[in-house]
Amino acid sequence: MNTQTTVRAPTPIEPGIALERISIERVREAAARLAGVAERTPAIRSRTLEDALGAASVVLKCETMQAIGAFKIRGAYNAISRLSDEAKRSGVLTYSSGNHAQAVALAGRLLGVRTVILMPENAPRVKLDATRARLDPANGSRIEIYGKGTPGREDMAREIGAREALTLIPPYDNPDVVCGQGTAALELFEDHPDLDALFVPVGGGGLISGSATVARALAPGCKIVGIEPELGGDAAASFRSGRIEIAGPRVGETICDGAATPYLGAWTFPVIRARVDDVITATDAEASRAMRLMMDKAKLVVEPTGALGLAGAIKMRDQIAGKKVGVIVSGGNVDIDRLPELLAIGRDR
Amino acid sequence: MNTQTTVRAPTPIEPGIALERISIERVREAAARLAGVAERTPAIRSRTLEDALGAASVVLKCETMQAIGAFKIRGAYNAISRLSDEAKRSGVLTYSSGNHAQAVALAGRLLGVRTVILMPENAPRVKLDATRARLDPANGSRIEIYGKGTPGREDMAREIGAREALTLIPPYDNPDVVCGQGTAALELFEDHPDLDALFVPVGGGGLISGSATVARALAPGCKIVGIEPELGGDAAASFRSGRIEIAGPRVGETICDGAATPYLGAWTFPVIRARVDDVITATDAEASRAMRLMMDKAKLVVEPTGALGLAGAIKMRDQIAGKKVGVIVSGGNVDIDRLPELLAIGRDR
Repeated sequence: MNTQTTVRAPTPIEPGIALERISIERVREAAARLAGVAERTPAIRSRTLEDALGAASVVLKCETMQAIGAFKIRGAYNAISRLSDEAKRSGVLTYSSGNHAQAVALAGRLLGVRTVILMPENAPRVKLDATRARLDPANGSRIEIYGKGTPGREDMAREIGAREALTLIPPYDNPDVVCGQGTAALELFEDHPDLDALFVPVGGGGLISGSATVARALAPGCKIVGIEPELGGDAAASFRSGRIEIAGPRVGETICDGAATPYLGAWTFPVIRARVDDVITATDAEASRAMRLMMDKAKLVVEPTGALGLAGAIKMRDQIAGKKVGVIVSGGNVDIDRLPELLAIGRDR
Repeated sequence: MNTQTTVRAPTPIEPGIALERISIERVREAAARLAGVAERTPAIRSRTLEDALGAASVVLKCETMQAIGAFKIRGAYNAISRLSDEAKRSGVLTYSSGNHAQAVALAGRLLGVRTVILMPENAPRVKLDATRARLDPANGSRIEIYGKGTPGREDMAREIGAREALTLIPPYDNPDVVCGQGTAALELFEDHPDLDALFVPVGGGGLISGSATVARALAPGCKIVGIEPELGGDAAASFRSGRIEIAGPRVGETICDGAATPYLGAWTFPVIRARVDDVITATDAEASRAMRLMMDKAKLVVEPTGALGLAGAIKMRDQIAGKKVGVIVSGGNVDIDRLPELLAIGRDR
């Protein structure tokens, strides 16, 4: 575990409060708000993956085909929609390595809200360009680049936010963001109410908190498994220890940049503890091999983080034999020209 | 045009007979036979491609997600199913660079019919391996490799077929094959009856003949456009001249190996003339750029031939502005490690 004193894990929200604010009712309200904005993404059955996994049925919820190429628009739009008129007039800010940045930029444009986005200098170029393309510069929206290392980004966000009276839309640690992310699983369970297990990538825990909230309400028997990059490892450790652990110092090195978060959120941690069945880790090589399988068998382009769900299903192959499983394919924003390099990581190991 | 005397175009079937044997009723019968065998593949709306094309709506019929990674199982299974019991007991043979080979291998296995498959030595490795994996060696099924150059394959097929009493299941020039292929469009028009235009790859014309047959019956106002590799060029030339023309000598060089056929079929030509609105060509660079766009925007892995429909839509961008268009994404059997090479062909030209 990282012993840097600059990284402090948040104090978890009281479970009773978190479980009340992050509820199936709020996810349904988010779905109503998102109608006509977020895509109802396809839930695709893949026979070829079934053969590879020995599962009876494999359903891929393709958030790669979501408006910004990832699920994040769901949470960002829901959270900005819920702001007061005054807060909307002042504007919002956020920090993100990529997909959440695009999501806030697009949601701000759609809702006419000024946005300031802090992005790390090592953010994937495809995500930086896409964020810039979605920002509305006419209302003063802009990107601010910060140096390597995520620890300081939250302080920087607080400072700019205070100076410009902007409301922070965090990438995951916010109940409205979480309830928005839950709408992907809501659609999935509407289409496939009979899943035995659901595999969901874990970074800060927004997607899995929302997904598990939906599953507990609509499919109580469905096992919810989170998968995080092994180079982080904090979510699995936190799930076991019962407190929010800090990610390992190499978390920033994982190819799964969408899940390279320093810790679970104050809001997401209690929800994960209460509603998720297990959190496991996948190495970069395992994520890379799952990417290749997704391309080769399911014919889908995914970013490394988007392959984590499948990587988890592969690791739990014995447990899912003959079962019906869902996999949330969280995003597909990968630089096509970087694919050979990313796919090579999983080869011959 | 190729002047080799060994290549002789077939004599077209009398149009009245072809249009009667290749009919919406026969496509519906094929669909009933294929239930539970062929996947009902997803028809995916892609907003990001809509932005790129300026179309109001773009629907991708993902035959990449079909049982063998391409539509060909539809025609092969339908045709083998329709054989007499005696013919089934003797077995079948075919020639194919890839997807039809896999289709016949799988259909033979499913129906318990011995299959002999002639494949060219330059067939993509991914297709050769996949065909071998689907063959049932227990009943004497096998692959025979032949040398470069397609002209002689039909004679070789006839010779082996006569010696072993095998029925030829041709890749396209057979009404039962064509009616099977039409079931993809049948599903598409069931899901989206209001398409203004449909873009379909053309090799020997099986897929487009079946698709156009369905469109004329269910969506008379929908324009049907075929796209073939420019290095072939025979289908567009045949469509215009009114007789079956021979492909250019470089047809075997196109990256669109799934559409590298020497001529339209005796059965498919009259159907195309009667039911298709236009046939156009796409260069390999255009196919490559469409592959990249499909990966980058729609997050789908396609083989070069599978990108021809989108390449055609891009070329007709001005005519489809504001319209609802369908694209048949015919197959996704591409060697993932060859993607950089294939994508480079479209760069900076």
